[in-house]
Order: sequence, then C-alpha cells, then structure tokens
Amino acid sequence: LDYQHVQVPFEITLWIMLASLAKIGFHLYNKLPSVVPESCLLIFVGLIMGGIIYGLNDRSPPVMDSDIFFLYLLPPIVLDAGYFMPSRPFFENIGTILLYAVVGTIWNVFGIGFSLYGICQVKAFRLQDVSLLHNLLFGSLIAAVDPVAVLAVFEEIHVNEKLHILVFGESLLNDAVTVVLYKLFRSFCEMPTIKSVDVFAGVGKFFVVGLGGVLVGLSFGFTAAFTTRFTKDIRVIEPLFVFLYSYLSYLTAEMFHLSGIVAIISCAMGMKRYVEANISLKSHTTVKYFMKMWSSVSDTLIFIFLGVSTIGENHEWNWPYICFTVIFCLIWRALGVLVLTFFVNRFHVNTITSKDQFIIAYGGLRGAICFSLVFLLPDFHRKKLFIAATTVVILFTVFVQGMTIRPLVDLLAVKRKRESAPTVGEQIHIRFLDHLLAGIEDISGHWGQYYWKDKLEYFNSKYLQKILLREYDQPKSSIVLLYEKLERKHAIELAQAGQLGHGPAHPSFLCSAFLCSSSDRTVRTDQKLEDTPNPDVLDNMQEILARNLYRIRRTGPAYNRHTLPGDGEPTEQAKEILILRHKNR
Amino acid sequence: LDYQHVQVPFEITLWIMLASLAKIGFHLYNKLPSVVPESCLLIFVGLIMGGIIYGLNDRSPPVMDSDIFFLYLLPPIVLDAGYFMPSRPFFENIGTILLYAVVGTIWNVFGIGFSLYGICQVKAFRLQDVSLLHNLLFGSLIAAVDPVAVLAVFEEIHVNEKLHILVFGESLLNDAVTVVLYKLFRSFCEMPTIKSVDVFAGVGKFFVVGLGGVLVGLSFGFTAAFTTRFTKDIRVIEPLFVFLYSYLSYLTAEMFHLSGIVAIISCAMGMKRYVEANISLKSHTTVKYFMKMWSSVSDTLIFIFLGVSTIGENHEWNWPYICFTVIFCLIWRALGVLVLTFFVNRFHVNTITSKDQFIIAYGGLRGAICFSLVFLLPDFHRKKLFIAATTVVILFTVFVQGMTIRPLVDLLAVKRKRESAPTVGEQIHIRFLDHLLAGIEDISGHWGQYYWKDKLEYFNSKYLQKILLREYDQPKSSIVLLYEKLERKHAIELAQAGQLGHGPAHPSFLCSAFLCSSSDRTVRTDQKLEDTPNPDVLDNMQEILARNLYRIRRTGPAYNRHTLPGDGEPTEQAKEILILRHKNR
Repeated sequence: LDYQHVQVPFEITLWIMLASLAKIGFHLYNKLPSVVPESCLLIFVGLIMGGIIYGLNDRSPPVMDSDIFFLYLLPPIVLDAGYFMPSRPFFENIGTILLYAVVGTIWNVFGIGFSLYGICQVKAFRLQDVSLLHNLLFGSLIAAVDPVAVLAVFEEIHVNEKLHILVFGESLLNDAVTVVLYKLFRSFCEMPTIKSVDVFAGVGKFFVVGLGGVLVGLSFGFTAAFTTRFTKDIRVIEPLFVFLYSYLSYLTAEMFHLSGIVAIISCAMGMKRYVEANISLKSHTTVKYFMKMWSSVSDTLIFIFLGVSTIGENHEWNWPYICFTVIFCLIWRALGVLVLTFFVNRFHVNTITSKDQFIIAYGGLRGAICFSLVFLLPDFHRKKLFIAATTVVILFTVFVQGMTIRPLVDLLAVKRKRESAPTVGEQIHIRFLDHLLAGIEDISGHWGQYYWKDKLEYFNSKYLQKILLREYDQPKSSIVLLYEKLERKHAIELAQAGQLGHGPAHPSFLCSAFLCSSSDRTVRTDQKLEDTPNPDVLDNMQEILARNLYRIRRTGPAYNRHTLPGDGEPTEQAKEILILRHKNR
Repeated sequence: LDYQHVQVPFEITLWIMLASLAKIGFHLYNKLPSVVPESCLLIFVGLIMGGIIYGLNDRSPPVMDSDIFFLYLLPPIVLDAGYFMPSRPFFENIGTILLYAVVGTIWNVFGIGFSLYGICQVKAFRLQDVSLLHNLLFGSLIAAVDPVAVLAVFEEIHVNEKLHILVFGESLLNDAVTVVLYKLFRSFCEMPTIKSVDVFAGVGKFFVVGLGGVLVGLSFGFTAAFTTRFTKDIRVIEPLFVFLYSYLSYLTAEMFHLSGIVAIISCAMGMKRYVEANISLKSHTTVKYFMKMWSSVSDTLIFIFLGVSTIGENHEWNWPYICFTVIFCLIWRALGVLVLTFFVNRFHVNTITSKDQFIIAYGGLRGAICFSLVFLLPDFHRKKLFIAATTVVILFTVFVQGMTIRPLVDLLAVKRKRESAPTVGEQIHIRFLDHLLAGIEDISGHWGQYYWKDKLEYFNSKYLQKILLREYDQPKSSIVLLYEKLERKHAIELAQAGQLGHGPAHPSFLCSAFLCSSSDRTVRTDQKLEDTPNPDVLDNMQEILARNLYRIRRTGPAYNRHTLPGDGEPTEQAKEILILRHKNR
C-alpha cells in the first residue's frame, strides 16, 4: 500500500465526491430543501464530520485554508455568477448597487467598528485591551455581505428581479471596498504611527482596486473573445478558453492586489456575447454546464468546510463581545439600508418599497469570505475571540436569517419574480422604447443611461464586433436567434413525439421510417436495390430514397482526439436539398 | 506585486494556455498537420521553449515531474481512450491483443536487455560496468509501446479498425506487464541476492496486477453507474461522477500497486452504457466534450514537456549504447511481431496480412511513459546514459517513424478504415449473425466468444440493468435509440433550413413564424388580442394561436445554481398536445 504517493489527488477527489453525494442525498428527499436552505444542511454535514474527526483524532480538524478558498473555490462561483448575470437589471440599477456596495459597506465597517470599541470600554466585559484599530479591522471583515451565502439563499426564494440584483450585486461589488479597508486597517495595525497621507492613499486605493479590476477583467475578456475567433477547426478546446482567461483575470488581479471578484465578473460579462457567437452550440452547452457544475461543487465544499472548521479549539468565548457583534451587524445594516434607500428613492421614479428594504437588510448574510479573512489576520492575542465572533455571526445569519427569510417573504407578500420569460412582443417593445428614450435623451442633451447604452451599442457594432466576431459581416438580430432557437426546440419536441414530416401514425410508419433512416446512411443500398425483382417495391423504395437521400450521414473517425462524432454542422448543400425535398412533397 | 501567492495556479494556467494556443496555431495552417504529426510539432515547440529557458537561466529547464505525469496528465488521456474505445473490435481481438501486450512485451524486454548486455561486453565501448540487471531494467522501461504516442499518430493515418485496435490495445494493456517487470527488476537491483522464489513471485504478480486492475476498475464503474441512478433532480453534477469515479479507480489501483491504466479503462468501459442511459442528453454532451478537451490538453502538455525536458545537462552520451538501443528496439519488435503473428494466424481465419504486420511493428512508438519511468530510476552512476538513450529512442520513434508512417501506409496501400459508419441494415444483420453464432456455439458445445457474449448480455439484461439503470423496465433497443437520434438530428436540420411544419416560404412567412413563436410563449397575448378591431386578423391570429398554443415556454429562475435555463425535458402533456395539433392539421 502506497498511500503517500496518491494522497493529495485522492483526498481532493474524495472531498468532492462527498460534496456531490451530500447534494444528491438532500435532493432525494424533496421536502427537506423546501424548508431548510441547502447551505444550512451542508454546514450541518460539515459540523458532524468535524465532530467525527475531532472525536477520532482528539485534536482540532484542519480549518479551511484561506489560499485554497480564494484561489480555487471562490473563482468558479464568481465566474458562474458573472457569466449568468442578467445584464439589463444589473446596469439599470448600477448606481443603487454601487451606493449600497461602497457607501453602505463603509458605513457598516465604521459603525460596527466604533460601536464595538464602545463596548470594549465597559470594564465589566474585560475587553479593554482590544484597540480601536483592531475593532475597525474586525468591522472591515465582518461588514461585507457574502455573495456565496446570498446566492445560496436567494436563488431558492425567488424574489423579484430588482430586489435580487440589489442584494446580489452589492455582495459582489463590495469586494473592492472590503479588500481595501481590510488591507488598510491591517497595515495600520502594524504601523507605529499613522499619517494623514496614509488615510488619503487608502481612499485613492478604492478607485484603483475597483477600476483596476474592471480593466483587467475587460482586457482578458476581450482577449478571450478574440482567441475564440480562431478555434473553428478545433472546436473541442473552445470551452477551455472561457475558463482559462477568466481564471487568469482573477489571478492577475489578485497578483496586483486589485479586486479579483470584480475582475472575473467584468471578464465574464465582457466576453459572454462574443464568445457565445463564436463557439459552437455544443461547446456552449459544455461551457454553461461545466460552469454550473463547478460552481455548485465549490459552493458545496465551502459550506461543508465552514462546518468542519467551526469545530475545534481555536475559539475564545466572550459573551458580551460576540452578542454585541451580532446585534450591531443587524442594527447597522438596517440603518444603512434605510438611510441610503431614502436618498435613492428621492432620485428615482421606481422606488424601493419598505418591504424590499426589509428584505435587503435582512438578506445581508455573511459567509466564507469573512471566515477566510479572519484566519488571514496576523497573530495577536485576541485573534481567537475574533474567530469565535465571526463564526457565530456566520452561523447566525446563515441559519436564523437564511431559514426565516422564506417565511418572511411569504408573510410580507414581497413581490415575486415573474415566472415566465418576457414574450418576444414585450422584448420588441422594450427595445423600441430604449431607442426612443435614447433619442429623447440625445435631443434634450441629458446624458442618461439610455444615451450611453446607445453609444456603447454603436461602438460595439461598429468596432468591437468586427474585431472579436468570426463572422462579423452577418450579425444576426437576437430576435432571429431566439426564433431559430425556438424552432430547434420545437423540432426536437416534434421528433420526440414522433410527428416529424410523416403522415399520421399507421402500422407501417416505424418500418418506413427505418427504411428512411437506413437509406439516409448509405448510397450503396441504392445500387443493390437495382437487382430487386419486384418493380412495385422497387418504385416505392426509389421514391423513399429520392425523398430522403439528401445527405450521407457520416460519423467521424472513431478515435479522433480533436472531434466528437457528428460534430460537423449541416452544410449549405444539405440545406438546399432539404428545401428541394420539401417542395417536392 | 504579490506573485508568490498566485504562482502555482498562475503557472499551471499559463502552461495550459500555451498548449491550447499552440494547438490553435497549428490548425490555422491547414497544410502543416497533414504532413507532420501534431506530436512532432509539439515536441518541437517544447524544444524551442526549453532552449529559451536554458539560454535565459543558464541552467537545465525543469524536467517533467513523474508524479505530475502519472497522477494528472496520463489519466485523462487513458479515460478518453477507454470511454471511446469501440468495444466490438476490441473484444473480438482481445486474444491477439493480450498476446502482443503480454508475451510480446516480455519478449522485447528480455531481447533488448540481453542484447544490450552483449554490447556492454565489448571492451572498446567502455560499458563493462553496466550489469545484466541494469540492462534488463532499462529493457523493461524502453520496451513498452506508449498509448499517448500511438494515439497521436494513428488517429491521423486512419488505418483499418482491426490494425488500429491491435496496436492501440497492445499499448494500453502492456501497462500491467511494464509495471510488474519494471518494479521487479528495480527491486532485484537493490537486493543483494536473488532467490528463485522471487522470480516466481514476479510471475504471479502479472495476474494480480492485471486482474486486480480490472476488478478495481469494474467495481468503481458499477458504483458510478449506480450513483447516476439518483441524479434525476440534480442533473448539473452528473458529469462530475463520471470523472470522479474513474479517477478514483486509477488512484486506488496505483495505491495498491496495480495497473492504473487497466483500472481506468475497465471503469470507463464498464460504466459507459449504464451512465449514458441514466444521465441527460446535455450531461452526456458535457461528459464527451470535456473528456475530449481534457485529454487533448493533457496530450499537448505531455509532448511540450517532453520537448522541454530534452534540453539540459542530464545526458551522458555514449554512441554505441544509444545507437544499438535504437537498433535493438526496432529489430526485437519486428521479430516479436513476426513470430507472434505466425501463431495467431494459424488459429484464425481472418489473418493478419504481412502489410499489417509491418505497420504493427513500425507503429511501436515510445513516449512519455518511458521518459517518466527513466527519471524514476534510483540514482546510480549510469542513470544519465539511460536518460540519453531513452530520449533518443523517443525522439527517433516519434519523429522518424511518426512522420514516415503515413507515406508508408499510402505506399503499401494498407487497407484503410471505411469512411462511413455501418448502416442500420448492416447493424441488424451483424446482430442477427451474432445470435446465430451464439446458438451454433451453444449446440456444438464450443464455448467461444459468441457464447460468452450471449451469456454476458443475458446476465446484463437480467440483473445488472435492473440494479444500475433508473428506468430498467423500459429498455430501448439500440436501434430505436439510433432512430430517435437520427430523427432529432433531422429535425434540427429541418429547423435550420426553415422548413419545419410550414408551407413553402412566402413573404409573410417570417412574420407569421414570429407570431407563432411569440404566441407560444405567452397566454396573455391571447387576452389582449380580444380587443383587436379587425375580425379577419383576429380570426387568423386565433387560428395560429390555436395551432401553436401547446405549451407555455418557461425559462427557469435566472440565477439558479442547480439548473440551466431550459433544462427540463418536454412533458408527456406537451407531447400529447403536439400529437393533437398534428392531427388537426
């Protein structure tokens, strides 16, 4: 037995396997996931596993490595979120989202930090050795809403699109603020004196970290789109580029201390439309499927690890500090949302209702990002207290808030998301109105979102598409694409119902269909049939052949490394014959 | 700049990116791959890169780590090979393949080992310090034909299926023999005296290593099939299980010193038919696509690394030893093939022609497995000589034999593979003949391959399918499945040609199609239309609606982690409405 040799990949595979099996297990009982969010169940599994490891080894189970979390587990989830981000509601509410993400997070950091410092001054609590800077540092890591936890809960409760994008967008974009504040306070903690110049440099860093992330992401996204222009002969590695370039954008941003999350989201949103136009349909299915699969597994692993890491002896328990942390997290978030929404509502026609405000405040879940950040803290004597407080806040938000938010949404009758996608008619009208509003804005000299959107669209079709798309001279309208997609789906349904291009089912239907498909596949049959004695049968077969002989179906070479069987797309010739055949009928 | 933090994933991603871009680059020039095999080009790229690294750093570039090769690069390629292995020709020729793989490899090992020992006795060559055991050890690593190199070359020359499966099957199955002999001689080298009992233990190990691999692989394969029975509600992680279980089978086999290659191939072949029946169509596309993608990238990386590792100062050059190694490799392989084929042809009706024999002998390419094994040798004073000889043999076989085999195949007019897949008619006849032969064998009391195949098929449908398949009570014949696949493909082609269920194209065609598809998607349009003033238009629309209103197309919730939009399969109800609609028409 040589376990050492295979240990690393073996254990990784086993963890992923455990995560996948846990997911299957939950879905076997249909009632469970409808009451308890999956994230809670997974943390629970993690707690049990941690308990078992602790019981067997008699020492703390290994905590989740922050490097593993930030380098391997977080990127797939953020990539999935960015790639499937509905861009319209996101850009429509970008101002509000940024306000919540930037001002709201700063508000929370300083609110929680200063009020915890106030608690530390109470002598009875024995916390006087926790300095203001340490409290602010703790505030900076505990304030940020976690995208993984928010996604896990909000995708199960189906609130309306605007509310969802507000909470979710905030959780993604506050990364830049969190990174800056966390690093700022951490370096302040290690500095002997703090000059005012450092504080200003910190403020300037916001923009560098956020905008730098966007720039890195967009440049990698456009490079990815450009690369997929040249993959026509080697379809099978197309999906790879989507993953490679977005991962590189994340790593590059992290390398330069920019916001990796912002970078990967910009990359995904930037490349999506061009990549989708360039790659084949099967590659696209693979990209989407694999992204979902990967993010789903990462997400499961994160929650299980959260549970496992909770067990152990790295906690220092101090009732007042921990309780007040939870209370302040709730209070400052609620206040922040109320104040910011007040200003937002003054400048918008489509206001955020008080119910929505409640859900935004209540949906501020904390998760694995806080947890990883608290373990990355430099060693000092109260680190274990911070770890304990962070763990409690995460468990409180995920379990209590996560489990009660669905009943609350039902109780308050919060506006739900519409079940069906917009109709083609609606889409046409929306697009028409967009053009109209862009025109109005242009005439009135108001440079609003429609004006910029129109300019961007012009720039896109005039320059970007020519560079990034393989067949830029035949851009298809998205409505035509939708129509083709619907027709394709319809055709598959017809085929599955056995109603494709034949008369109503009769006994010989299957038989003649067999003949059709077999005659589709060979020309030689045609020659052999000449020898058949019975002229009636011959005529009949000839007719079937003439009708169906539009294409010799070939399969590719059986072992080719670069192609899948049946990878080729129907040629123009095949289409022509199809049309001919239809006319004959 | 914090490069250390992201170094490992960043460099891995960059290497994969380089490999993918190199692949795209070659395919941009269509003429190049038709003359030079891709493997040669990739080694060439590797040589250049190695030269650059050597020139810049002034020290040898890093050699390919054997652990990385065996644990991460080899499994995807073997999995791909096993999963797409055509099982019929493989099992029809299993006896011949095993003869080549086991007896042929042993023949080569001892042939090359003893004759090199003979060369070492010539005083002028200054090689007298290389013992017989060291020569045999070297023989054991240099004798085995490499599946990666064989695949890379043979998939481009399209020889007939039997010839392909003989060379390719041998290269896969000789792994068990290579593992045993290599480990045996390595431990003999370290032992002071060798007892005859050790030699017999070595012979017994063949069976343990080979059959153990098969057992491990099959048990993981069936577990994988069993697991996919329960993934109906969570389609998105289905592809994961295929990869996880096969990788686990490989690692487990390696852990117990069994043949990992044999294990992963048995696992893939064992699970394939059950997994395919259980998982959804999209999952299956993802599995196939991702497997191809992954093996393609691994393969590219292996050849590039081979090139990079060749450059450097870890070679000891000794003309006679190296030249004679190349010559003996060629001679002993040719002799082995001749002798073994002589016996094979005596017992088979369908003989192996002398042209085929030549290609089998000439196609014995060496590759990265030898290279990794030679670096795994324990340190001794002639290790650098062995490294040099192995490198030369690999480069010789890949460049000289790999580049000349295609012209030789053309020159000799070796029977090519048939371009088109067998027709449905042929398939039916083949199956009928199988049953007939199984019956004949049963009556005559001869337990040949048809008898066993029939028994296995019976066992499969009686027991295995009930346990491993989700819907075991409705097993579809593979011909019905093929028919459905063809119909689906046909439907998509019809849809793409715009000929689906409409009259011949006329000006208003697109317009009415839009109406159809938009009416497909909403019921509310129906209500709004009641207010339309013009009764003719109204009637017309009502008719279109009545004809098309079979299903409200829904898309799933926009951000769901577990589902892709449009993941659901058409319900029974939808099919019924489709049929109704067709009858109305």
